[in-house]
Amino acid sequence: MDLRLKKSHVTFEGKTQFFEHDSQVTKTPMSFSTYTPNGEVKNAIIWLSGLTCNEENFITKAGAQKELSGTSTMIICPDTSPRGLSLIGEHEAYDFGSGAGFYVNATTEGYKDHYRMYDYILEEIVPLLKKQFSVQKISIMGHSMGGHGALILGIKNPNIFSSVSAFSPIVNPSFCPWGVKAFNGYLGEERESWKEYDTCELLKNGFTRKDTLFIDQGNADEFLKEQLLTGNLEATATDSGQSVNIRYQDGHDHSYYFIQTFLKDHLDFHMLSF
Amino acid sequence: MDLRLKKSHVTFEGKTQFFEHDSQVTKTPMSFSTYTPNGEVKNAIIWLSGLTCNEENFITKAGAQKELSGTSTMIICPDTSPRGLSLIGEHEAYDFGSGAGFYVNATTEGYKDHYRMYDYILEEIVPLLKKQFSVQKISIMGHSMGGHGALILGIKNPNIFSSVSAFSPIVNPSFCPWGVKAFNGYLGEERESWKEYDTCELLKNGFTRKDTLFIDQGNADEFLKEQLLTGNLEATATDSGQSVNIRYQDGHDHSYYFIQTFLKDHLDFHMLSF
Repeated sequence: MDLRLKKSHVTFEGKTQFFEHDSQVTKTPMSFSTYTPNGEVKNAIIWLSGLTCNEENFITKAGAQKELSGTSTMIICPDTSPRGLSLIGEHEAYDFGSGAGFYVNATTEGYKDHYRMYDYILEEIVPLLKKQFSVQKISIMGHSMGGHGALILGIKNPNIFSSVSAFSPIVNPSFCPWGVKAFNGYLGEERESWKEYDTCELLKNGFTRKDTLFIDQGNADEFLKEQLLTGNLEATATDSGQSVNIRYQDGHDHSYYFIQTFLKDHLDFHMLSF
Repeated sequence: MDLRLKKSHVTFEGKTQFFEHDSQVTKTPMSFSTYTPNGEVKNAIIWLSGLTCNEENFITKAGAQKELSGTSTMIICPDTSPRGLSLIGEHEAYDFGSGAGFYVNATTEGYKDHYRMYDYILEEIVPLLKKQFSVQKISIMGHSMGGHGALILGIKNPNIFSSVSAFSPIVNPSFCPWGVKAFNGYLGEERESWKEYDTCELLKNGFTRKDTLFIDQGNADEFLKEQLLTGNLEATATDSGQSVNIRYQDGHDHSYYFIQTFLKDHLDFHMLSF
Protein backbone atom coordinates (compact mmCIF):
# COMPACT_ATOMS: atom_id res chain seq x y z
CA MET A 1 0.00 0.00 0.00
CA ASP A 2 1.27 3.40 -0.96
CA LEU A 3 1.25 5.75 2.02
CA ARG A 4 1.56 9.47 1.39
CA LEU A 5 3.11 11.34 4.31
CA LYS A 6 1.34 14.72 4.56
CA LYS A 7 2.79 16.19 7.78
CA SER A 8 5.35 15.16 10.37
CA HIS A 9 5.97 16.79 13.76
CA VAL A 10 8.63 15.78 16.26
CA THR A 11 6.71 15.30 19.53
CA PHE A 12 8.39 14.22 22.76
CA GLU A 13 10.69 11.30 21.79
CA GLY A 14 8.80 10.40 18.64
CA LYS A 15 6.79 11.67 15.69
CA THR A 16 3.20 12.76 15.17
CA GLN A 17 2.42 12.11 11.52
CA PHE A 18 -0.45 12.46 9.08
CA PHE A 19 -0.86 10.07 6.17
CA GLU A 20 -3.16 9.60 3.21
CA HIS A 21 -3.61 6.46 1.13
CA ASP A 22 -5.95 5.07 -1.52
CA SER A 23 -8.30 2.66 0.17
CA GLN A 24 -9.32 -0.46 -1.70
CA VAL A 25 -12.24 -0.89 0.69
CA THR A 26 -13.82 2.57 0.54
CA LYS A 27 -12.60 3.29 -2.99
CA THR A 28 -11.60 6.78 -1.82
CA PRO A 29 -8.47 8.34 -0.41
CA MET A 30 -8.43 7.83 3.38
CA SER A 31 -6.52 9.75 6.03
CA PHE A 32 -5.09 8.75 9.37
CA SER A 33 -2.69 10.10 11.95
CA THR A 34 -0.10 8.24 13.99
CA TYR A 35 2.21 8.75 16.89
CA THR A 36 5.26 6.53 16.71
CA PRO A 37 7.77 6.65 19.54
CA ASN A 38 11.44 6.55 18.56
CA GLY A 39 13.11 3.16 18.69
CA GLU A 40 11.57 -0.18 17.85
CA VAL A 41 7.78 -0.15 17.64
CA LYS A 42 6.33 -3.53 18.53
CA ASN A 43 2.63 -2.96 19.11
CA ALA A 44 -0.16 -0.61 18.11
CA ILE A 45 -3.36 0.79 19.54
CA ILE A 46 -6.09 1.75 17.09
CA TRP A 47 -8.10 4.80 18.20
CA LEU A 48 -11.55 5.26 16.66
CA SER A 49 -13.03 8.74 16.96
CA GLY A 50 -16.62 9.83 17.37
CA LEU A 51 -19.19 11.78 15.36
CA THR A 52 -17.91 14.87 13.50
CA CYS A 53 -14.30 13.93 14.11
CA ASN A 54 -11.55 13.20 11.65
CA GLU A 55 -7.99 11.92 12.04
CA GLU A 56 -6.92 15.10 13.84
CA ASN A 57 -9.08 15.32 16.97
CA PHE A 58 -7.54 12.67 19.15
CA ILE A 59 -3.94 13.24 18.16
CA THR A 60 -4.15 16.99 18.86
CA LYS A 61 -6.26 16.93 22.03
CA ALA A 62 -5.81 13.75 24.04
CA GLY A 63 -2.20 14.01 25.17
CA ALA A 64 -1.32 10.48 24.05
CA GLN A 65 2.14 11.40 22.84
CA LYS A 66 3.52 12.11 26.27
CA GLU A 67 2.33 8.73 27.54
CA LEU A 68 3.55 6.69 24.55
CA SER A 69 6.94 8.42 24.24
CA GLY A 70 9.57 6.00 25.45
CA THR A 71 7.38 2.92 24.95
CA SER A 72 7.32 0.45 22.05
CA THR A 73 3.63 1.14 21.33
CA MET A 74 2.34 3.39 18.56
CA ILE A 75 -1.18 4.72 18.09
CA ILE A 76 -3.09 5.13 14.83
CA CYS A 77 -6.20 7.31 14.44
CA PRO A 78 -8.18 6.75 11.23
CA ASP A 79 -10.66 9.25 9.86
CA THR A 80 -14.29 8.44 10.70
CA SER A 81 -15.67 8.10 7.17
CA PRO A 82 -14.79 8.28 3.50
CA ARG A 83 -14.46 11.84 2.17
CA GLY A 84 -14.77 13.56 -1.15
CA LEU A 85 -17.98 11.85 -2.24
CA SER A 86 -21.38 13.37 -2.93
CA LEU A 87 -23.83 10.65 -1.96
CA ILE A 88 -27.47 11.48 -1.34
CA GLY A 89 -27.80 12.81 2.21
CA GLU A 90 -24.11 12.40 2.94
CA HIS A 91 -23.34 15.95 4.02
CA GLU A 92 -26.65 17.10 5.49
CA ALA A 93 -26.25 16.21 9.16
CA TYR A 94 -23.47 15.76 11.70
CA ASP A 95 -24.69 12.29 12.63
CA PHE A 96 -24.90 10.59 9.25
CA GLY A 97 -22.58 10.31 6.26
CA SER A 98 -19.31 12.21 6.33
CA GLY A 99 -17.75 12.17 9.79
CA ALA A 100 -20.21 9.51 10.90
CA GLY A 101 -19.32 6.18 9.28
CA PHE A 102 -20.36 4.23 12.39
CA TYR A 103 -17.88 1.42 11.65
CA VAL A 104 -20.38 -0.67 9.67
CA ASN A 105 -20.34 -2.10 6.15
CA ALA A 106 -23.22 -0.30 4.48
CA THR A 107 -25.65 -2.24 2.32
CA THR A 108 -27.84 0.60 1.10
CA GLU A 109 -27.69 2.07 -2.37
CA GLY A 110 -24.76 4.42 -2.88
CA TYR A 111 -23.34 3.92 0.59
CA LYS A 112 -22.59 0.22 0.08
CA ASP A 113 -19.87 1.08 -2.43
CA HIS A 114 -17.88 3.29 -0.05
CA TYR A 115 -19.11 3.33 3.57
CA ARG A 116 -17.42 0.13 4.67
CA MET A 117 -15.62 1.37 7.77
CA TYR A 118 -15.84 -1.99 9.54
CA ASP A 119 -13.88 -3.66 6.77
CA TYR A 120 -11.65 -0.62 6.41
CA ILE A 121 -10.40 -1.03 9.97
CA LEU A 122 -10.22 -4.82 9.85
CA GLU A 123 -9.02 -5.43 6.30
CA GLU A 124 -6.94 -2.36 5.67
CA ILE A 125 -5.75 -0.66 8.88
CA VAL A 126 -4.83 -3.94 10.63
CA PRO A 127 -2.78 -5.29 7.68
CA LEU A 128 -1.21 -1.86 7.18
CA LEU A 129 -0.05 -1.84 10.81
CA LYS A 130 1.51 -5.27 10.39
CA LYS A 131 3.13 -4.67 7.03
CA GLN A 132 3.95 -0.97 6.93
CA PHE A 133 4.67 -0.44 10.62
CA SER A 134 5.92 -3.98 11.46
CA VAL A 135 3.59 -4.22 14.43
CA GLN A 136 3.08 -7.52 16.25
CA LYS A 137 0.09 -7.00 18.51
CA ILE A 138 -2.86 -4.63 18.14
CA SER A 139 -5.52 -3.40 20.51
CA ILE A 140 -8.47 -1.12 19.88
CA MET A 141 -10.19 1.74 21.67
CA GLY A 142 -12.41 4.69 20.86
CA HIS A 143 -14.84 7.38 21.96
CA SER A 144 -18.62 7.55 21.58
CA MET A 145 -19.34 6.31 18.01
CA GLY A 146 -15.71 5.19 18.02
CA GLY A 147 -16.17 3.43 21.35
CA HIS A 148 -19.01 1.54 19.67
CA GLY A 149 -16.66 0.72 16.79
CA ALA A 150 -13.96 -0.52 19.15
CA LEU A 151 -16.41 -2.71 21.04
CA ILE A 152 -17.99 -4.38 18.01
CA LEU A 153 -14.66 -4.90 16.25
CA GLY A 154 -13.08 -6.18 19.45
CA ILE A 155 -15.90 -8.52 20.43
CA LYS A 156 -16.12 -10.06 16.97
CA ASN A 157 -12.38 -10.40 16.49
CA PRO A 158 -10.82 -11.48 19.79
CA ASN A 159 -7.88 -13.10 18.04
CA ILE A 160 -6.98 -9.92 16.19
CA PHE A 161 -7.30 -7.38 18.99
CA SER A 162 -5.38 -8.02 22.21
CA SER A 163 -7.64 -5.79 24.29
CA VAL A 164 -10.60 -3.43 23.97
CA SER A 165 -11.49 -0.23 25.77
CA ALA A 166 -13.80 2.72 25.27
CA PHE A 167 -14.69 6.17 26.48
CA SER A 168 -18.42 6.97 26.53
CA PRO A 169 -19.32 4.30 23.94
CA ILE A 170 -22.66 3.91 22.21
CA VAL A 171 -23.32 0.39 23.46
CA ASN A 172 -26.76 -0.39 22.06
CA PRO A 173 -27.12 1.63 18.86
CA SER A 174 -30.24 -0.22 17.70
CA PHE A 175 -32.10 1.55 20.48
CA CYS A 176 -30.74 5.11 20.49
CA PRO A 177 -31.49 7.94 18.04
CA TRP A 178 -27.94 8.21 16.66
CA GLY A 179 -27.77 4.47 16.04
CA VAL A 180 -31.26 4.09 14.62
CA LYS A 181 -30.63 6.90 12.14
CA ALA A 182 -27.26 5.52 11.09
CA PHE A 183 -28.36 1.90 10.82
CA ASN A 184 -31.45 2.85 8.84
CA GLY A 185 -29.29 4.83 6.46
CA TYR A 186 -26.43 2.37 6.11
CA LEU A 187 -28.19 -0.98 6.61
CA GLY A 188 -31.85 -0.35 5.78
CA GLU A 189 -34.97 -0.92 7.82
CA GLU A 190 -34.51 -4.65 8.45
CA ARG A 191 -33.41 -4.61 12.08
CA GLU A 192 -32.06 -8.16 12.04
CA SER A 193 -29.04 -6.91 10.07
CA TRP A 194 -28.35 -4.28 12.73
CA LYS A 195 -27.51 -6.91 15.32
CA GLU A 196 -24.09 -7.64 13.94
CA TYR A 197 -23.04 -4.07 14.67
CA ASP A 198 -24.59 -3.65 18.13
CA THR A 199 -22.49 -4.48 21.18
CA CYS A 200 -25.41 -5.53 23.38
CA GLU A 201 -26.95 -7.64 20.61
CA LEU A 202 -23.61 -9.28 19.85
CA LEU A 203 -23.18 -10.25 23.50
CA LYS A 204 -26.69 -11.69 23.56
CA ASN A 205 -25.85 -13.71 20.47
CA GLY A 206 -22.82 -15.35 22.01
CA PHE A 207 -19.99 -13.10 20.90
CA THR A 208 -17.80 -12.59 23.95
CA ARG A 209 -14.16 -12.07 24.85
CA LYS A 210 -12.34 -13.87 27.63
CA ASP A 211 -10.69 -10.66 28.78
CA THR A 212 -12.36 -7.64 30.37
CA LEU A 213 -13.83 -4.76 28.38
CA PHE A 214 -12.61 -1.53 29.99
CA ILE A 215 -14.94 1.47 29.82
CA ASP A 216 -14.86 4.98 31.27
CA GLN A 217 -18.12 6.90 31.29
CA GLY A 218 -18.68 10.40 32.66
CA ASN A 219 -21.79 10.56 34.81
CA ALA A 220 -22.36 14.19 33.73
CA ASP A 221 -22.23 13.12 30.08
CA GLU A 222 -25.04 14.92 28.27
CA PHE A 223 -25.59 11.91 25.98
CA LEU A 224 -25.57 9.18 28.62
CA LYS A 225 -29.27 8.52 29.01
CA GLU A 226 -30.56 9.01 25.49
CA GLN A 227 -27.70 7.87 23.26
CA LEU A 228 -25.06 5.86 25.08
CA LEU A 229 -27.32 3.57 27.18
CA THR A 230 -24.42 2.30 29.26
CA GLY A 231 -26.79 0.58 31.67
CA ASN A 232 -27.91 -1.76 28.88
CA LEU A 233 -24.35 -3.03 28.57
CA GLU A 234 -24.07 -3.61 32.31
CA ALA A 235 -27.16 -5.81 32.27
CA THR A 236 -26.30 -7.63 29.04
CA ALA A 237 -22.72 -8.30 30.07
CA THR A 238 -23.86 -9.88 33.33
CA ASP A 239 -26.34 -12.10 31.49
CA SER A 240 -23.86 -13.14 28.84
CA GLY A 241 -20.90 -13.70 31.11
CA GLN A 242 -18.79 -10.96 29.52
CA SER A 243 -16.46 -9.32 32.01
CA VAL A 244 -16.69 -5.52 31.87
CA ASN A 245 -15.10 -2.85 34.01
CA ILE A 246 -17.28 0.24 33.68
CA ARG A 247 -16.06 3.22 35.68
CA TYR A 248 -18.55 6.06 36.11
CA GLN A 249 -16.52 9.21 36.54
CA ASP A 250 -18.02 11.94 38.71
CA GLY A 251 -18.72 15.24 37.03
CA HIS A 252 -17.14 14.28 33.72
CA ASP A 253 -18.82 15.07 30.41
CA HIS A 254 -18.47 13.80 26.82
CA SER A 255 -15.49 15.96 25.87
CA TYR A 256 -11.80 15.45 25.20
CA TYR A 257 -11.17 16.99 28.63
CA PHE A 258 -12.70 13.78 30.00
CA ILE A 259 -10.66 11.63 27.63
CA GLN A 260 -7.34 13.29 28.48
CA THR A 261 -8.04 12.81 32.19
CA PHE A 262 -8.24 9.03 31.98
CA LEU A 263 -6.26 8.28 28.83
CA LYS A 264 -3.20 7.00 30.64
CA ASP A 265 -5.26 4.31 32.35
CA HIS A 266 -6.46 3.08 28.96
CA LEU A 267 -3.04 3.14 27.34
CA ASP A 268 -1.59 1.25 30.29
CA PHE A 269 -4.44 -1.28 30.06
CA HIS A 270 -3.65 -1.96 26.41
CA MET A 271 0.10 -2.06 26.89
CA LEU A 272 -0.34 -4.65 29.64
CA SER A 273 -2.21 -6.86 27.15
CA PHE A 274 0.69 -6.95 24.68
CA MET B 1 -16.17 42.76 36.65
CA ASP B 2 -19.00 40.53 35.54
CA LEU B 3 -17.71 37.20 34.27
CA ARG B 4 -20.01 35.03 32.21
CA LEU B 5 -19.18 31.32 32.45
CA LYS B 6 -19.81 29.78 29.00
CA LYS B 7 -18.53 26.21 29.46
CA SER B 8 -17.07 24.14 32.26
CA HIS B 9 -15.37 20.74 31.95
CA VAL B 10 -14.04 18.66 34.82
CA THR B 11 -10.45 17.85 33.80
CA PHE B 12 -8.08 15.82 35.98
CA GLU B 13 -8.48 17.26 39.50
CA GLY B 14 -9.78 20.62 38.40
CA LYS B 15 -11.86 22.50 35.85
CA THR B 16 -11.29 23.76 32.31
CA GLN B 17 -13.57 26.76 31.86
CA PHE B 18 -14.47 29.32 29.23
CA PHE B 19 -15.52 32.84 30.21
CA GLU B 20 -16.70 35.99 28.49
CA HIS B 21 -16.72 39.50 29.93
CA ASP B 22 -17.22 43.07 28.76
CA SER B 23 -13.83 44.68 28.48
CA GLN B 24 -13.47 48.32 29.46
CA VAL B 25 -10.20 48.45 27.56
CA THR B 26 -11.22 47.02 24.20
CA LYS B 27 -14.86 48.14 24.50
CA THR B 28 -15.92 44.71 23.24
CA PRO B 29 -16.81 41.42 24.85
CA MET B 30 -13.61 39.42 25.42
CA SER B 31 -13.16 35.69 25.91
CA PHE B 32 -10.65 33.66 27.86
CA SER B 33 -10.21 30.11 29.08
CA THR B 34 -8.82 28.91 32.39
CA TYR B 35 -7.70 25.76 34.07
CA THR B 36 -8.08 25.93 37.84
CA PRO B 37 -6.93 22.98 39.92
CA ASN B 38 -9.17 21.97 42.81
CA GLY B 39 -8.21 23.34 46.20
CA GLU B 40 -6.73 26.72 46.98
CA VAL B 41 -5.34 28.56 43.95
CA LYS B 42 -2.51 30.85 44.91
CA ASN B 43 -0.80 31.80 41.68
CA ALA B 44 -1.50 32.16 37.98
CA ILE B 45 0.30 31.84 34.68
CA ILE B 46 -0.95 33.95 31.79
CA TRP B 47 -0.64 32.22 28.41
CA LEU B 48 -0.64 34.42 25.30
CA SER B 49 -1.38 32.65 22.04
CA GLY B 50 -0.09 33.32 18.55
CA LEU B 51 -1.50 34.44 15.21
CA THR B 52 -4.90 32.98 14.22
CA CYS B 53 -5.48 31.58 17.72
CA ASN B 54 -8.21 32.30 20.18
CA GLU B 55 -8.79 31.29 23.80
CA GLU B 56 -9.25 27.64 22.81
CA ASN B 57 -6.00 26.57 21.14
CA PHE B 58 -3.70 26.26 24.10
CA ILE B 59 -6.22 24.87 26.54
CA THR B 60 -7.28 22.10 24.14
CA LYS B 61 -3.89 21.17 22.69
CA ALA B 62 -1.03 21.80 25.10
CA GLY B 63 -1.74 19.31 27.87
CA ALA B 64 -1.38 21.89 30.66
CA GLN B 65 -4.17 20.44 32.76
CA LYS B 66 -2.34 17.26 33.62
CA GLU B 67 0.67 19.22 34.82
CA LEU B 68 -1.26 21.81 36.85
CA SER B 69 -3.69 19.34 38.45
CA GLY B 70 -2.70 18.98 42.08
CA THR B 71 -0.81 22.28 42.20
CA SER B 72 -1.94 25.67 43.49
CA THR B 73 -1.31 27.35 40.11
CA MET B 74 -3.98 28.16 37.54
CA ILE B 75 -3.54 29.18 33.93
CA ILE B 76 -5.51 31.77 31.97
CA CYS B 77 -5.55 32.02 28.16
CA PRO B 78 -7.01 35.24 26.74
CA ASP B 79 -8.21 35.56 23.17
CA THR B 80 -5.69 37.22 20.85
CA SER B 81 -7.75 40.23 19.75
CA PRO B 82 -11.09 41.95 20.12
CA ARG B 83 -13.90 40.31 18.14
CA GLY B 84 -17.19 41.34 16.65
CA LEU B 85 -15.93 44.56 15.08
CA SER B 86 -15.79 45.55 11.42
CA LEU B 87 -12.78 47.83 11.21
CA ILE B 88 -11.19 48.56 7.85
CA GLY B 89 -8.82 45.70 7.00
CA GLU B 90 -9.60 43.84 10.22
CA HIS B 91 -10.68 40.51 8.73
CA GLU B 92 -8.69 40.40 5.50
CA ALA B 93 -5.52 38.57 6.57
CA TYR B 94 -4.46 36.03 9.20
CA ASP B 95 -1.63 38.28 10.38
CA PHE B 96 -3.45 41.54 11.06
CA GLY B 97 -6.64 42.47 12.88
CA SER B 98 -8.80 39.72 14.33
CA GLY B 99 -6.67 36.94 15.80
CA ALA B 100 -3.58 39.11 15.52
CA GLY B 101 -3.72 41.85 18.16
CA PHE B 102 0.06 41.70 18.71
CA TYR B 103 -0.25 42.85 22.35
CA VAL B 104 0.16 46.54 21.51
CA ASN B 105 -2.00 49.59 22.20
CA ALA B 106 -2.97 50.76 18.74
CA THR B 107 -2.77 54.41 17.85
CA THR B 108 -4.13 54.31 14.32
CA GLU B 109 -7.61 55.38 13.34
CA GLY B 110 -10.29 52.86 14.21
CA TYR B 111 -7.90 50.42 15.85
CA LYS B 112 -6.93 52.80 18.66
CA ASP B 113 -10.42 52.54 20.12
CA HIS B 114 -10.34 48.74 20.50
CA TYR B 115 -7.01 47.08 19.72
CA ARG B 116 -5.37 47.72 23.07
CA MET B 117 -4.24 44.21 23.92
CA TYR B 118 -1.21 45.43 25.90
CA ASP B 119 -3.44 47.29 28.31
CA TYR B 120 -6.03 44.53 28.20
CA ILE B 121 -3.56 42.05 29.66
CA LEU B 122 -2.00 44.49 32.10
CA GLU B 123 -5.01 46.51 33.21
CA GLU B 124 -7.77 43.95 32.96
CA ILE B 125 -6.48 40.37 33.06
CA VAL B 126 -3.99 41.01 35.86
CA PRO B 127 -6.54 42.74 38.15
CA LEU B 128 -9.15 40.11 37.26
CA LEU B 129 -6.76 37.36 38.37
CA LYS B 130 -6.17 39.13 41.66
CA LYS B 131 -9.76 40.05 42.40
CA GLN B 132 -11.87 37.34 40.79
CA PHE B 133 -9.47 34.43 41.25
CA SER B 134 -7.71 35.65 44.45
CA VAL B 135 -4.32 35.05 42.92
CA GLN B 136 -1.17 36.32 44.63
CA LYS B 137 1.61 35.94 42.07
CA ILE B 138 1.46 35.99 38.29
CA SER B 139 3.87 34.96 35.58
CA ILE B 140 3.54 35.19 31.82
CA MET B 141 4.37 33.04 28.83
CA GLY B 142 3.29 32.62 25.22
CA HIS B 143 3.93 31.31 21.73
CA SER B 144 5.10 33.15 18.61
CA MET B 145 3.15 36.45 18.58
CA GLY B 146 2.16 35.52 22.14
CA GLY B 147 5.78 34.86 23.03
CA HIS B 148 6.49 38.38 21.84
CA GLY B 149 3.63 39.59 24.03
CA ALA B 150 4.94 37.74 27.07
CA LEU B 151 8.44 39.12 26.57
CA ILE B 152 7.46 42.77 26.16
CA LEU B 153 4.95 42.68 29.01
CA GLY B 154 7.40 40.83 31.23
CA ILE B 155 10.40 43.03 30.49
CA LYS B 156 8.46 46.25 31.04
CA ASN B 157 6.71 45.06 34.19
CA PRO B 158 9.15 43.03 36.27
CA ASN B 159 7.29 43.82 39.47
CA ILE B 160 4.02 42.47 38.13
CA PHE B 161 5.21 39.25 36.51
CA SER B 162 7.25 36.84 38.60
CA SER B 163 8.82 35.15 35.58
CA VAL B 164 8.70 35.17 31.79
CA SER B 165 9.04 32.40 29.23
CA ALA B 166 8.23 31.85 25.59
CA PHE B 167 7.98 29.27 22.85
CA SER B 168 9.20 30.41 19.43
CA PRO B 169 8.73 34.12 20.18
CA ILE B 170 8.91 36.95 17.67
CA VAL B 171 11.79 38.79 19.36
CA ASN B 172 12.45 41.69 17.03
CA PRO B 173 9.14 42.51 15.33
CA SER B 174 10.34 45.82 13.92
CA PHE B 175 12.51 43.82 11.53
CA CYS B 176 10.32 40.88 10.44
CA PRO B 177 7.42 40.88 7.97
CA TRP B 178 4.74 39.95 10.54
CA GLY B 179 5.87 42.68 12.92
CA VAL B 180 6.36 45.36 10.31
CA LYS B 181 2.87 44.77 8.94
CA ALA B 182 1.28 44.76 12.38
CA PHE B 183 3.17 47.79 13.69
CA ASN B 184 2.44 49.77 10.56
CA GLY B 185 -1.24 48.96 10.91
CA TYR B 186 -1.57 49.49 14.65
CA LEU B 187 1.09 52.15 15.32
CA GLY B 188 1.64 53.91 12.01
CA GLU B 189 4.78 54.44 9.98
CA GLU B 190 6.78 56.27 12.67
CA ARG B 191 9.20 53.53 13.72
CA GLU B 192 10.21 55.24 16.96
CA SER B 193 6.88 54.28 18.47
CA TRP B 194 7.48 50.64 17.56
CA LYS B 195 10.39 50.40 19.99
CA GLU B 196 8.23 50.14 23.06
CA TYR B 197 6.75 46.90 21.77
CA ASP B 198 9.91 45.23 20.49
CA THR B 199 11.85 42.94 22.84
CA CYS B 200 15.27 43.63 21.31
CA GLU B 201 14.66 47.36 21.21
CA LEU B 202 13.45 47.39 24.82
CA LEU B 203 16.59 45.60 25.96
CA LYS B 204 18.73 48.08 24.04
CA ASN B 205 16.87 50.90 25.77
CA GLY B 206 17.59 49.65 29.24
CA PHE B 207 14.54 47.58 30.06
CA THR B 208 15.82 44.39 31.66
CA ARG B 209 14.82 41.85 34.27
CA LYS B 210 17.06 40.50 36.97
CA ASP B 211 15.81 36.96 36.39
CA THR B 212 16.39 34.80 33.34
CA LEU B 213 14.12 34.79 30.30
CA PHE B 214 13.41 31.16 29.40
CA ILE B 215 12.87 30.40 25.71
CA ASP B 216 12.40 27.19 23.73
CA GLN B 217 12.88 27.41 19.99
CA GLY B 218 12.59 24.58 17.49
CA ASN B 219 15.48 24.56 15.06
CA ALA B 220 13.22 23.12 12.35
CA ASP B 221 10.76 25.98 12.87
CA GLU B 222 9.68 27.19 9.45
CA PHE B 223 9.46 30.79 10.71
CA LEU B 224 12.78 30.95 12.54
CA LYS B 225 14.90 32.80 10.03
CA GLU B 226 12.43 35.21 8.51
CA GLN B 227 10.02 36.04 11.34
CA LEU B 228 11.29 35.03 14.75
CA LEU B 229 14.89 36.26 14.49
CA THR B 230 15.95 34.50 17.68
CA GLY B 231 19.59 35.21 16.98
CA ASN B 232 18.93 38.95 17.35
CA LEU B 233 17.80 38.34 20.92
CA GLU B 234 20.89 36.31 21.71
CA ALA B 235 23.12 39.17 20.61
CA THR B 236 21.06 41.94 22.23
CA ALA B 237 20.71 40.11 25.52
CA THR B 238 24.45 39.66 25.76
CA ASP B 239 25.05 43.36 25.05
CA SER B 240 22.41 44.54 27.50
CA GLY B 241 23.25 42.14 30.31
CA GLN B 242 19.88 40.39 30.22
CA SER B 243 20.13 36.75 31.21
CA VAL B 244 18.39 34.47 28.69
CA ASN B 245 18.21 30.70 28.46
CA ILE B 246 17.45 29.91 24.84
CA ARG B 247 17.18 26.19 24.12
CA TYR B 248 17.24 25.23 20.45
CA GLN B 249 15.31 21.97 20.17
CA ASP B 250 16.41 19.57 17.45
CA GLY B 251 13.85 18.77 14.78
CA HIS B 252 11.02 20.70 16.41
CA ASP B 253 8.74 22.96 14.39
CA HIS B 254 6.34 25.82 15.23
CA SER B 255 3.39 23.64 16.23
CA TYR B 256 1.57 22.71 19.42
CA TYR B 257 3.32 19.33 19.18
CA PHE B 258 6.49 21.27 20.00
CA ILE B 259 4.77 23.19 22.78
CA GLN B 260 3.32 20.09 24.43
CA THR B 261 6.74 18.45 24.40
CA PHE B 262 8.38 21.12 26.54
CA LEU B 263 5.43 22.64 28.36
CA LYS B 264 6.17 20.96 31.69
CA ASP B 265 9.61 22.61 31.79
CA HIS B 266 7.98 26.03 31.40
CA LEU B 267 5.27 25.42 33.97
CA ASP B 268 7.88 24.18 36.44
CA PHE B 269 10.01 27.26 35.71
CA HIS B 270 7.12 29.57 36.54
CA MET B 271 5.99 27.64 39.59
CA LEU B 272 9.52 27.84 40.98
CA SER B 273 9.33 31.64 40.71
CA PHE B 274 6.22 31.90 42.91
